[in-house]
Amino acid sequence: MNKYNVSALILAVSLNVNAGEYTKHVDPFIGTGAIEGGLSGNNYPGATMPYGMVQLSPDTHPAPDWFNASGYNYNDSIIYGFSHTRLSGTGASDLIDILLFPSTGNATSSKFNHARESASPGYYSVFLEDEGILAELTVTPRTGIHRYTFPKGSTGNLLVDLDHSAQKGSWDRKIIQSQIRKVAPDAIAGFRIITGWAKLRKVYFYMKFSRPIADMRFYDGDRELRETDVINGKALRAWLSFDVDSPLSVNVGISPVSIENAAENLDYETSGKDFDKLAAEADAAWEKELGRIDAKADPETLKTFYTALYHTMIQPNLISDVNGQYMAPDYSIRKVPAAGSAEYSTFSLWDTYRAAHPLYSLIMPSKNADFVNSMLDHYNTYGYLPIWQLWGQDNYCMIGNHAVPVVADAVMKGADGIDPKRAWNAVKGSVTKSHPGSPFDVWNRYGYMPEEIQSQSVSITLEDSFDDWCVAQVAKFLGKENEHEFFAKRAGNYKNLFREDIGFFAPKDSLGNWIEPFDPLRFGANGGYPFTEGNAWQYLWYVPHDTQSLVALLGGKKAFENKLDTFFTLTDTSGEKNDNISGSIGQYAHGNEPSHHVAYLYNDAGNPAKAQRMIHRICKELYNNTSSGYAGNDDCGEMSAWYIFSAMGFYPVNPASGEYYIGTPLLDECVIHLENGKDFVITADRSKPDDIIVKDVRINGKKPGDLKLRHKEIMEGGVMKFRLQGK
Amino acid sequence: MNKYNVSALILAVSLNVNAGEYTKHVDPFIGTGAIEGGLSGNNYPGATMPYGMVQLSPDTHPAPDWFNASGYNYNDSIIYGFSHTRLSGTGASDLIDILLFPSTGNATSSKFNHARESASPGYYSVFLEDEGILAELTVTPRTGIHRYTFPKGSTGNLLVDLDHSAQKGSWDRKIIQSQIRKVAPDAIAGFRIITGWAKLRKVYFYMKFSRPIADMRFYDGDRELRETDVINGKALRAWLSFDVDSPLSVNVGISPVSIENAAENLDYETSGKDFDKLAAEADAAWEKELGRIDAKADPETLKTFYTALYHTMIQPNLISDVNGQYMAPDYSIRKVPAAGSAEYSTFSLWDTYRAAHPLYSLIMPSKNADFVNSMLDHYNTYGYLPIWQLWGQDNYCMIGNHAVPVVADAVMKGADGIDPKRAWNAVKGSVTKSHPGSPFDVWNRYGYMPEEIQSQSVSITLEDSFDDWCVAQVAKFLGKENEHEFFAKRAGNYKNLFREDIGFFAPKDSLGNWIEPFDPLRFGANGGYPFTEGNAWQYLWYVPHDTQSLVALLGGKKAFENKLDTFFTLTDTSGEKNDNISGSIGQYAHGNEPSHHVAYLYNDAGNPAKAQRMIHRICKELYNNTSSGYAGNDDCGEMSAWYIFSAMGFYPVNPASGEYYIGTPLLDECVIHLENGKDFVITADRSKPDDIIVKDVRINGKKPGDLKLRHKEIMEGGVMKFRLQGK
Repeated sequence: MNKYNVSALILAVSLNVNAGEYTKHVDPFIGTGAIEGGLSGNNYPGATMPYGMVQLSPDTHPAPDWFNASGYNYNDSIIYGFSHTRLSGTGASDLIDILLFPSTGNATSSKFNHARESASPGYYSVFLEDEGILAELTVTPRTGIHRYTFPKGSTGNLLVDLDHSAQKGSWDRKIIQSQIRKVAPDAIAGFRIITGWAKLRKVYFYMKFSRPIADMRFYDGDRELRETDVINGKALRAWLSFDVDSPLSVNVGISPVSIENAAENLDYETSGKDFDKLAAEADAAWEKELGRIDAKADPETLKTFYTALYHTMIQPNLISDVNGQYMAPDYSIRKVPAAGSAEYSTFSLWDTYRAAHPLYSLIMPSKNADFVNSMLDHYNTYGYLPIWQLWGQDNYCMIGNHAVPVVADAVMKGADGIDPKRAWNAVKGSVTKSHPGSPFDVWNRYGYMPEEIQSQSVSITLEDSFDDWCVAQVAKFLGKENEHEFFAKRAGNYKNLFREDIGFFAPKDSLGNWIEPFDPLRFGANGGYPFTEGNAWQYLWYVPHDTQSLVALLGGKKAFENKLDTFFTLTDTSGEKNDNISGSIGQYAHGNEPSHHVAYLYNDAGNPAKAQRMIHRICKELYNNTSSGYAGNDDCGEMSAWYIFSAMGFYPVNPASGEYYIGTPLLDECVIHLENGKDFVITADRSKPDDIIVKDVRINGKKPGDLKLRHKEIMEGGVMKFRLQGK
Repeated sequence: MNKYNVSALILAVSLNVNAGEYTKHVDPFIGTGAIEGGLSGNNYPGATMPYGMVQLSPDTHPAPDWFNASGYNYNDSIIYGFSHTRLSGTGASDLIDILLFPSTGNATSSKFNHARESASPGYYSVFLEDEGILAELTVTPRTGIHRYTFPKGSTGNLLVDLDHSAQKGSWDRKIIQSQIRKVAPDAIAGFRIITGWAKLRKVYFYMKFSRPIADMRFYDGDRELRETDVINGKALRAWLSFDVDSPLSVNVGISPVSIENAAENLDYETSGKDFDKLAAEADAAWEKELGRIDAKADPETLKTFYTALYHTMIQPNLISDVNGQYMAPDYSIRKVPAAGSAEYSTFSLWDTYRAAHPLYSLIMPSKNADFVNSMLDHYNTYGYLPIWQLWGQDNYCMIGNHAVPVVADAVMKGADGIDPKRAWNAVKGSVTKSHPGSPFDVWNRYGYMPEEIQSQSVSITLEDSFDDWCVAQVAKFLGKENEHEFFAKRAGNYKNLFREDIGFFAPKDSLGNWIEPFDPLRFGANGGYPFTEGNAWQYLWYVPHDTQSLVALLGGKKAFENKLDTFFTLTDTSGEKNDNISGSIGQYAHGNEPSHHVAYLYNDAGNPAKAQRMIHRICKELYNNTSSGYAGNDDCGEMSAWYIFSAMGFYPVNPASGEYYIGTPLLDECVIHLENGKDFVITADRSKPDDIIVKDVRINGKKPGDLKLRHKEIMEGGVMKFRLQGK
């Protein structure tokens, strides 16, 4: 049989993807590859369910690391297989568990090209050119479903590779132990224990094939173990052979708890359903989630918008099994409190507290409550809220304690199912108990972080001030006056690092001396410098809880506006930029989070038109529908969430205030179907596409004098009408 | 207050140790230190319960490794604290978890001297000279109990060190994560996750003090974290301060599963009982265990004997909690099948299958059944029986699959509570499924291990032949004729490596050629040479299941006896000896296991008097009651078990045959109180102490023509009478 016939077969069996009203707008390839040398979104095109445990996607790197963190790069041309877990949009790589690769012989990779690759929410397919094998992937929450169509008459071999992972050595990554075992004529099972960015992960699997295993070979590293049905070791691979007259289906249930749980997950989620049925269910699940916002716009904008919405919803991720068990941060096995509830992880909080969690608390507060309760569970066993939680464990990535605004916001918005007392203990505990990066004894003593005691001192001082403001608001909300006063005072600590002579937040030592020389253009990374993944220009704007005071500090509205103008135009540099700096407009860097709220601050300067122009510019210039569609790492949906809010016409500059700054809508119309059954409608009345300046905006007929939209106003349902004119 | 008063106080409060009829004979310092340059028993003097999870003992090394594996060396003069877990008699170190050290200031070690140190089963005390603090330790199965008596008027500080461990880096040992947390005014809790010789251990603790914590300081490495009640990190220490007008008691429950389980263990085992009560209970528990054998002899012999018996009973170790939960080899949490049953680990099987497990199956078959069932549980999740199981995981130390003889022996002796079908699957599976060190495809193909395919080939060929014999016997016992035949044939594989021209077992390559040059004196270690921790001389005798064939191979009885004579007298060496070789008599090395049965083989030569003389000589010359009382590592009680059997007058040359070779009793009389309620009595009628030659021996009045004692004869109760004369 020749290649032509193979490809004819392929075209015949490929699923009709992008079936839904909303899912049809999603292009999972957006953000999966960067123009050479730039930052990509680090997204992946594979199959996943909303907030699912499994992310089943092609791996185009044998050992992904920083620049291909999700395992896939659109610029690559070789696929090494399909593994079951990964992160979306992070700068660092981890997970990447349990790789399968189909071959007619013993190949372990194949060329592919994008012409024969397709993806939609919950479905991915690619034609592996070297041997003419069609690979299709779909998912349930905890199960990866593979379908491999081999050339007629060929042998069907399947590599199961437990050694494949993100780069070994990076984050001290190493496999501690693993197992592959034949447990039935048509099933294998096993596990991998690995330490890396997440300090210790246990990943169990149960893998069921659509027909019996005909032959089986086990390897630990280069050494083959013959005549056995089990292998334990640290570099395990198995080659399985099958009769493949018809496509081979492989269902892989995973669990962080046990092989039994993995089998139960698989059975519960896939029993009696074939690949096509499961793919249709995945599409339907996405259709339901994406339909929370009904947007109208031109097709290209809708593609950007719904792909961004999709990207916000592929994490946080389930880490509890069907039976409710999960591995807690203390590595013990615990159970969710009630049937139907679930435990979640993947909290990239320094990123996602800004816009992603506010989006969740707006369009799906009940799911956000699950996320918050998972954070509170973390507090229970760990002693403080997560900084960056991965597979249930804190990796301490970045600074601040930004679970605090997420929890505070949910409590103050009155989210159902969150115990305010438990939440209070957690937010208070997390900003009073010293822990890595958060020496609160120093904070209390100095009123700022002295750089020689706690590096990244200016960034931490600014961000901790905001977290304290959040705790102060919860205290007020719960009637705790003393605590309100204490934390409200600390929320003003940022002022202690404002250097009036030069108009920047700047580092001090523990004696109170400004540290010289000071260069506002110079970038810091993640330690050893007062600024975190940014410079003094970018951190100048970080007082989200008290922008009025910031305006005053900078000399009033006009001076504030001038400084913003300089910020968006000054292209000078001083030394190397941090790796995370991309999507630059002057000193503004949309590719990393500290800049994200800054365009909206023109509202505080009293010149909202400048805000509107800049927001529109960022939407148009720094997002597109190619593989390099993001200006930097999507960071677990944060870059996407910025777009969702901004395209709708508002943004949570202070993500825990219950208020949004009004910007300029990119969409023509948008209906948010709220969980309480009400709708909030946003309309944009423009005469031509580039009418972007807000001539008038009315919320239920009333003009918002401060150009702010209240969360309460949205939740009550209603309509916000924009009239747009000029640019 | 001066030192004199302090010591007066100490003498007043020290417990009256060695209270029991049997425990009074135990000296836990035996085997705890070697004469400079030699091997010690690597035993420890601290407090432990029979088969307990906790081994609470002083650490005289900051980071123990090979030569001080138990953490304590009698030749040392400084104590660094008291940690809760360790191994007894191993060559490699691991465990060594959760160290406490008391100080009046911030000292982290103290001088001590043996004059003010005492130990008995379940109790240890030492006077820490630097600051005049009396430290006393006792235990329950899963809880360590400390009592610290500080000088009057001093501050009472306690270091809790989670960073203390066996040597980091050795076996890739590193701490993955740990936690210390204040959980009550008088309690802290936490855990340590560490990988090392055991690939991944989780050790949780709950630590309750007899009074509230007055002050608390936390450190991660050198960095202090202030103003917090919790610390997470990889190098954790806490300093706790207490009011110490009266002694401070500290109860530390541990668990491999969770903090909650550790707390439950502590509560269940210690609630309402003070230190003295718990120490008395520990002594009573030992009294009961040691009383299984009632021995009569001179006091020094009784001390050696009961200390050896004690050493055989401090492992295998509990790894299940009071509620029955434990961590299985697949790192999942499982539960023992029935209330009251328990899971055990610490199976140093290459050592202990020889004499320790036969001793267990003789004097406590029900406990041995628990051990066997724990091994069968290991088989269930791991796929083959353990090689060397530590904290529930296989570290693959040494060669062969010597859980097989242990399981086989227990099944064939009809031990209650073992499912023969489950046992059959396990023994058969473990000698047919290839795994590290056991390539059974090679075994089946060649009938021996070719050195270039599987190193340590001669030792493995000999030992695997024996394991196959065991499986063959079980097959026969269960009426499986085909399997009996298959494994009985493989049990003869050892013959394929017998080199008739030189009269040694020697290595072959895969083409069947003898590998040259061959040097029977040259030692191997643990890979890269055909012999394992021994030479060809030592492995010449390893056909325990077919000594008659071995006699024939070596040219008949006279030639066999001559070769034995040479073995015990030839002192030539060739290059370096292996580290484990000590206690030498000619080529015989009592310090390591391959030699252990050889003295008894004179019986097969038809010259039992030579066996008797050699056994007596080994008992007298290679055991004594000093800290260097063992000729080599005690190896989890194996050296001790050899002594117990030999002192009683018999030894299991083939540990799964149900037969014992009769030697010469060292004891004057001995009653084995069997679990079935019957007694087996052994008497030695001698006119002077050095009458060691057996003039006559009668089992229930009958002369054993083959100089063998049957297990069945013992179990039926009765008496074996020796008449001894001359030397």
